[in-house]
Amino acid sequence: MNARIRDADLVIEGGMVITMAQGQAPISNGRVLIKDGIITDIHSRNEKCEGPGVQAEVIDAKDAIVMPGLINAHTHAAMTLFRGLADDLPLKQWLFEKIFPAEAKYLNPDTVYWGSLLGCLEMIASGTTCIADGYFFQDETVRAVHESGLRGLIAQGIIDFPAPGVPDPTKNLMVAKEFIERWLGFSTLITPGLFCHSPVTCSEQTLKGAWEISRRFDLPLQIHLSETSDEINEIIKRTGKRPVFYLDRLGLIDKGLIAAHAIHLDEMEISRVFKKGMKIVHVPESNMKLCAGIAPIRDMVNAGLTVGLGTDGCSSNNNLDLFCEMDTAAKLSKIYDLDPVGLNANTVVKMATSLGASVLGLEKEIGTLEIGKRADIIVVDTHQPHLCPVYDPLSAIVYSANGADVKDVIVNGKVLMKNRGFTTLDPVEIIEKVKVISSNISI
Amino acid sequence: MNARIRDADLVIEGGMVITMAQGQAPISNGRVLIKDGIITDIHSRNEKCEGPGVQAEVIDAKDAIVMPGLINAHTHAAMTLFRGLADDLPLKQWLFEKIFPAEAKYLNPDTVYWGSLLGCLEMIASGTTCIADGYFFQDETVRAVHESGLRGLIAQGIIDFPAPGVPDPTKNLMVAKEFIERWLGFSTLITPGLFCHSPVTCSEQTLKGAWEISRRFDLPLQIHLSETSDEINEIIKRTGKRPVFYLDRLGLIDKGLIAAHAIHLDEMEISRVFKKGMKIVHVPESNMKLCAGIAPIRDMVNAGLTVGLGTDGCSSNNNLDLFCEMDTAAKLSKIYDLDPVGLNANTVVKMATSLGASVLGLEKEIGTLEIGKRADIIVVDTHQPHLCPVYDPLSAIVYSANGADVKDVIVNGKVLMKNRGFTTLDPVEIIEKVKVISSNISI
Repeated sequence: MNARIRDADLVIEGGMVITMAQGQAPISNGRVLIKDGIITDIHSRNEKCEGPGVQAEVIDAKDAIVMPGLINAHTHAAMTLFRGLADDLPLKQWLFEKIFPAEAKYLNPDTVYWGSLLGCLEMIASGTTCIADGYFFQDETVRAVHESGLRGLIAQGIIDFPAPGVPDPTKNLMVAKEFIERWLGFSTLITPGLFCHSPVTCSEQTLKGAWEISRRFDLPLQIHLSETSDEINEIIKRTGKRPVFYLDRLGLIDKGLIAAHAIHLDEMEISRVFKKGMKIVHVPESNMKLCAGIAPIRDMVNAGLTVGLGTDGCSSNNNLDLFCEMDTAAKLSKIYDLDPVGLNANTVVKMATSLGASVLGLEKEIGTLEIGKRADIIVVDTHQPHLCPVYDPLSAIVYSANGADVKDVIVNGKVLMKNRGFTTLDPVEIIEKVKVISSNISI
Repeated sequence: MNARIRDADLVIEGGMVITMAQGQAPISNGRVLIKDGIITDIHSRNEKCEGPGVQAEVIDAKDAIVMPGLINAHTHAAMTLFRGLADDLPLKQWLFEKIFPAEAKYLNPDTVYWGSLLGCLEMIASGTTCIADGYFFQDETVRAVHESGLRGLIAQGIIDFPAPGVPDPTKNLMVAKEFIERWLGFSTLITPGLFCHSPVTCSEQTLKGAWEISRRFDLPLQIHLSETSDEINEIIKRTGKRPVFYLDRLGLIDKGLIAAHAIHLDEMEISRVFKKGMKIVHVPESNMKLCAGIAPIRDMVNAGLTVGLGTDGCSSNNNLDLFCEMDTAAKLSKIYDLDPVGLNANTVVKMATSLGASVLGLEKEIGTLEIGKRADIIVVDTHQPHLCPVYDPLSAIVYSANGADVKDVIVNGKVLMKNRGFTTLDPVEIIEKVKVISSNISI
C-alpha cells in the first residue's frame, strides 16, 4: 500500500476534486489524503486503487465536489444579532439611526460571544473555512472562532467615536494593541489584527497609529474604503485627495492593507493600488442592499489587483453564504460591465478561495488543494435536483449551488461538519440563546 | 370542537402564518385548516385551542413560516437538461450557437419528459407550487407536471423556425391549437396555453393567429418581450414602432398577454401596458446572466402594473429557486434605482405570490392564504443558523432564506413534500435518468 495512504489520518474518497491550483483540471473519482492537518496527496482513485489505512477517518465524497474551503474575507460575525433588524433603508440611515444605536445599546461581551458563535455556525454550515472579521469585544469573537474550529484573522475595531467596549476613543489604539498582544501566538488558526472603521470615521493620527502597530507585528490592517460617494466627497473636502491617494500619503496603501467595499475607485486609484499591492475585498450583496454602488471588480481583476470576496456583516446582506455571494458577484459584473465573459465562474471561485487566501496573506497555507498545504476543504453534495446535471463543476458551484449543499467541512484537517452534523458547535443551544438575546432587541 | 377543525383533512399547526392578504399582519402560533383542497380557516392557536380532528393529516410548523406557495411565472422546466451547458456567454451566442442547436439535437418527447420532471422536482424542493411554462413537446411537460402534483399554465411554444417537435413552422399554430384542445379540462391543476417565442422570431401573422386562438379559448398568451436592445431595434426597423406599440397595433397588449423579461420598455410603453392591463414577469437573474439589461421594475410597480417573478429556464440562471430570485430582485432594484425602499421585501414577496397569481389570471384561486382559496402553501423552517433571529418574517424570506429552507409543500391540499421528503416524485430515479441523458449531450 502507498505509504501516504497508509499514514493518512483523514481521507476524502471519491467525488470531483477541484484543486483551484493554477492550470489543474478537475480530478474525477478523486482521493485526498490528510495527515496532521496537511494535505499529503491528491490523486484519482482510478490510478491508485488501494483504500485508506484502517486508522483513517473517511469522508465519502461520491456524487460530490471536493474543493478548497471558502474564505470570507470581510465580515462582522457578531452582527448576526442584528440580521433583518433594519432593512430596506439607505446606508446612512441604516448605520447611524439603526446599527450604531443598536450596537451601543446591545453589544456586550456576552452578546458578541453568542452572535459570533451563530455567525461561525452559519459559516461552517455554508462552506466557509476561514474568515476575516472586524468588530468590537473581539476577545469574545476570538473565543467563538476558536471554539468553532474555523481559521480566522480577527481584528479589533478602531473608530474615533465612543464604541462598544471602548467608551473613550482616545484609548482605541491602546485597546487594539493590547488585543493583539493578548492573542498573538494563541492558536495557529487565529491571527489577531486591527480594523480601522474607515478613513472618514478615523482621524489621520488614528490611521497612522493603527498602521504603525500593524507593521510592528507584521499583521494586515483591515479597513472599509470608498463605500459611498459621500465618503469620497468628505475625504476630498478634508484632504484635497481621493481616499486612495490620501491613505497613500499616510503610507497605508500597501500589501498589508485589506480594503473592503472599494466601490468608488477611479482608474488612477486602481493603478496606484496595483502598484502598491493593497488587497481588496468585494462584498457585492451588501453594496447592492445598501445602495452603496457597484465596484468595478472586473477592471480591478484585469488590472492585476488581488480581490477576495466577503459577505460583510449579515445585517446588510442578510446571510453569510459565500455561494450566493459568488453567484451575485458574477451576475452583477455581467450586467454592470455588459460583459458576460469578464468575471466568469472560474474567476469568482478563485476570489472565494485562492485570491481570498492572498488577500489575507495566507496563500502559502490555504486557498488551493495542493500537497503540503493546510487541509481546509469542503465537500459539496451534487446529488440534488438543482445540481443535476453537472457539465462544468465551477459553473455548478457558482450559478446553481448554495451553502446548504455543503455536506462536509474540514479545517486544518479537523472535521467541523460531517453529513451536515456539526462536531464543534451545538446549533440548538446557539440558536436558542440568540433567540433569547434578540427578543430583547428593538431599535 | 370547532366544526372546521373537526372537518379538516389537513392541518398546519403552529408557526408564523404570513397570508399575504392585503393589510393582514402575520399570525403567530397559527393554524391553517384545509378540507378538499380548500383553506377553511386560519387562526391563532392562542385564540382557538382545540386540536385538529383525529382524521386530519398534521403538518408541524413550529419554528417555521407558513406562507403561500411561490409562483414561478416564467420558466422552461425541461431546460434543466441544459443547466450549465453554456455559461459566461453573450445572449445571442448562448441562444443561437448553443441552446437552439442543443434543443434541435437533443430534445424529444423522452428527454423533455425527464427534464421537466427534474424541473418540477427542483421547484417543489424550493417552494414553488405553481408555474407558467413555455416550451416544446409540451405534452410531456403536462405529463410531468401532472405527475408532480404542481399547478401550472403549460404552453406550447410557437416560433417561425423549424422547432423541436414542429419541423414545419407553417404548422406551428395548428400544433398549438391541437395541444390546447387535447389538454383543456384534463385537470383542474393544469391549464394549457400558447407561448409565442418573441415578436422578432414570430411574424405578424403568427402573433395574430396565436392571439386569436388564445382568445377563442379564453387563455393567457405568453411571450418574451423586449429582452435585448437589438430586438427593439429590429422591431422598429421592421414596423416603425417600439415593441409594445407594435403588439398593441396587433391587439395583443391586453390583460390576456403575459410578457416575460420586459426590460427595455420606455415610459410611454409602461403607460400603455398599464392602460391595457398586460401582465409582466420579471426574471432578474437570467437578465443579469445574459447581459440582457435591467428591467425598470420599481417604476412598473409604482405605475400600477401587475408584475410577477420568474426564474426563466435554468440554463440561464442556473437554478429554479425563487427565494434567490426574490433576493436578487430586491437588491438589483436598490442598486439600479439607487432607492433602498422602492422594491422592498414585502413587494417582492407579493411578486412571487399574490401578484404572480394575478399574472396567471388565478388571483381568485391562489396567491394568498385566505378562507375559500385553494391550499397552495409552503412551510419554511426557520430553526436554522442563517434564519436566526427573525425580526421581520418577510425580510427573512427575501434576504436570508433559500429554497432549501422549505420543509413542506402543499398544492391544492395535497402534500407534495413533507419534511423534505417527496411524495409524488422519486428524486433518485429522476436524477439518475437525467444524468444518463446529459452524459450524451455536448455542443
